[in-house]
Amino acid sequence: MNIDLYPSRVSNKATIKERKDPVIHSSAEGPLKQPELTSYEENGYLMIEKLFTDEEVELMIKELEKTMKDNQSRESADVIKEPGSNEIRSVFEIHKDSGFFELLSKNERIVKIAEQLLGSQVYINQSRINFKPGFKGKEFYWHSDFETWHVEDGMQHMRAVSCSIILTDNYEFNGPLMLIPGSHKWYVSCAGTTPDNNFESSLQKQEAGTPDNESLSWLTEKAGGRIDRATGPAGSVLFFECNTMHGSNGNLSPYPRSNVFFVFNSMENVIGKPYSGQDPRPEFLANREEVKPIQSVPSNSLTKQSIHY
Amino acid sequence: MNIDLYPSRVSNKATIKERKDPVIHSSAEGPLKQPELTSYEENGYLMIEKLFTDEEVELMIKELEKTMKDNQSRESADVIKEPGSNEIRSVFEIHKDSGFFELLSKNERIVKIAEQLLGSQVYINQSRINFKPGFKGKEFYWHSDFETWHVEDGMQHMRAVSCSIILTDNYEFNGPLMLIPGSHKWYVSCAGTTPDNNFESSLQKQEAGTPDNESLSWLTEKAGGRIDRATGPAGSVLFFECNTMHGSNGNLSPYPRSNVFFVFNSMENVIGKPYSGQDPRPEFLANREEVKPIQSVPSNSLTKQSIHY
Repeated sequence: MNIDLYPSRVSNKATIKERKDPVIHSSAEGPLKQPELTSYEENGYLMIEKLFTDEEVELMIKELEKTMKDNQSRESADVIKEPGSNEIRSVFEIHKDSGFFELLSKNERIVKIAEQLLGSQVYINQSRINFKPGFKGKEFYWHSDFETWHVEDGMQHMRAVSCSIILTDNYEFNGPLMLIPGSHKWYVSCAGTTPDNNFESSLQKQEAGTPDNESLSWLTEKAGGRIDRATGPAGSVLFFECNTMHGSNGNLSPYPRSNVFFVFNSMENVIGKPYSGQDPRPEFLANREEVKPIQSVPSNSLTKQSIHY
Repeated sequence: MNIDLYPSRVSNKATIKERKDPVIHSSAEGPLKQPELTSYEENGYLMIEKLFTDEEVELMIKELEKTMKDNQSRESADVIKEPGSNEIRSVFEIHKDSGFFELLSKNERIVKIAEQLLGSQVYINQSRINFKPGFKGKEFYWHSDFETWHVEDGMQHMRAVSCSIILTDNYEFNGPLMLIPGSHKWYVSCAGTTPDNNFESSLQKQEAGTPDNESLSWLTEKAGGRIDRATGPAGSVLFFECNTMHGSNGNLSPYPRSNVFFVFNSMENVIGKPYSGQDPRPEFLANREEVKPIQSVPSNSLTKQSIHY
C-alpha cells in the first residue's frame, strides 16, 4: 500500500493539517473562465446558475420520480431510506441505469468542467439521486467526503469533485447544503476508529468521520465567520471539492429538496484498498477493475428527441 | 367558562379557520409608525434592528450567563435542558428575578410597543432566556404559541405579543427563528388531544399541538411560498404576534444563539382556566391572581449606573 498522506480515525485526538494536493490540477482550457477557477480554488466550491434549462429539469424530475418509485420496495445497499421511516432518501449508482441518468452523467456540460478541474480524464466514482422531503427531512452533520472516501474506500489523493444538479429551487429555509469556504485547504483527521458496517448506518446518520468542534470552529473562523449556503433556482449546478467541509440542516418547510449527485474522480486517482481495512464496502463500490474514462456526450443530448435512444 | 373561540385538539381532524380577534388592538399613539404597524398587521411580526445598543447587549449577555450558571444544577420546572444532555436550553420566569431581567422586562422601549399593539396596559405572561448552543442546538418544529397558551393555559383571545431580544448575531446558518408571513390570520386547530404532563416534554420536543402538513402547506402557499427568517445583529428585537406560525432549524454552526424572551399579554386578556382541563400546569403559570400591569421604566435604565439599584 502507498504511504497514507491523510491518516484519520487512527488516534483519540483530532488534528488539522494542510492539504497536500493542488485544488485545480491543470491549466488546460475548459468551460470555466479564470474568475470561476479562482473562486473554486479559494472557496472549494462553485455554483453555476441554471446550467440546465427548465425543460431539462422537468425531464430530470420525472426520471427521478420514476427511479424512486421503481426502488420503493427494493431492499438493497444502494437504496437508502429516512431514519425511522420507509421513505427513500437516496438511490445510488444511478449512472449505471443504461438510461437517462447514465446519459446525464456523460453530459459534456458537467464532464468538461470536471476534466478541467481535475486535469485529466475522469470517471464516476459515485452517483446518487437525493430526495429530502418537506417537513421531516433530517439534518446531515458536517463532514468532508474525502475523509470518508480516503479512510473507508481508499481514495488516495484529493483529486475528485462532486457535482450536484439541483432539481428544486433551493431556499434558505428548505435545508440547503451549507459549506465552510476555504475548508478544503485543510484536512481534519478525525478521532476514533471506523466501526464495522459503517457504510450502511453512516448514510442515514453520520457518526464515524465526524470532525471535532474545535476544528470546525477553527475552519469557520478562518473563513471570517462565514458559512455559505448553496441556494439557487432549479437547474443550477454546484461543483464542490471532495475535501470541502459541508453539511445541511433539516427541512422544516413544505418544499422537498432533490438533486442528482455525481462524484467525478480523476483517472489518475483510481481507488485502491481502503485505509481502514475494516469496513466491508458495499459490492457496488468494490469493483474497481472496470473503471473507464467517461466519453462525454453533446450538451443537447438530454432533449426529448434524444432520450429515446 | 366562556365559549371556546378557538377549539383545538378536540378531534382527529385538523381544521383551519380565520382568526376572530384584531391583530392591532388600538389606534393609539406609540413608538411604532404607520409602515411598521402595517407590516406587523400583514406579516404577524416586526423586526426592529438594534433597538438595544452593543453596550446594553453586553450587559444582557453577562446577566444571561450568570443566570444560566446559577441554574445549572437546579432541577425545576422553570429550567429546561437540551434533550439528552444536561445543557440548559431555557430558564423561565426571569422577569421575577428582582434584578436585571425584571428591570429589562419593564423597559419602556419594549413595553410601549407592546401596549401600542395590544391597545391596553400589559403584563408579562411568560418570560425566559433561551440558549441554543453551537453544533448541537436542536430544531423546534412549527407551532403557534397561541394554540398552546389557549388550550393548555386558558388564554382566551389573540391579544398577546412575544418580544425576543436577540443577544447574538442571528445568521441564516445558526438556526434563526423562521416565520410564515400572514399565518397569524388563521387558526390551525390541531388534531389529537393533550397528553398528561405535556408542558414538561413539549418544551424539549414539540408533539401535542403540532400543526398538520396540509395546513402548513396552505399557509406557506398563502404567503407566496415565502418563509421568513429573523436574522439580524445582536440588540435587534423581534415582536411577533401570538398566533404567528414559527419554528427553527437546528444550529450546526459553531455560533450559539441566545435571546431574552418576554410575552406581553393584554390586561384585558388575563388567563383563566385551561381549555383542555387535562394538563397540570407548572406552578409558576398557575398563579394568575397576582397579575398587575407593568409600570414601564425609562429607556436608559439599563446603563451601568442604574442597574445597581
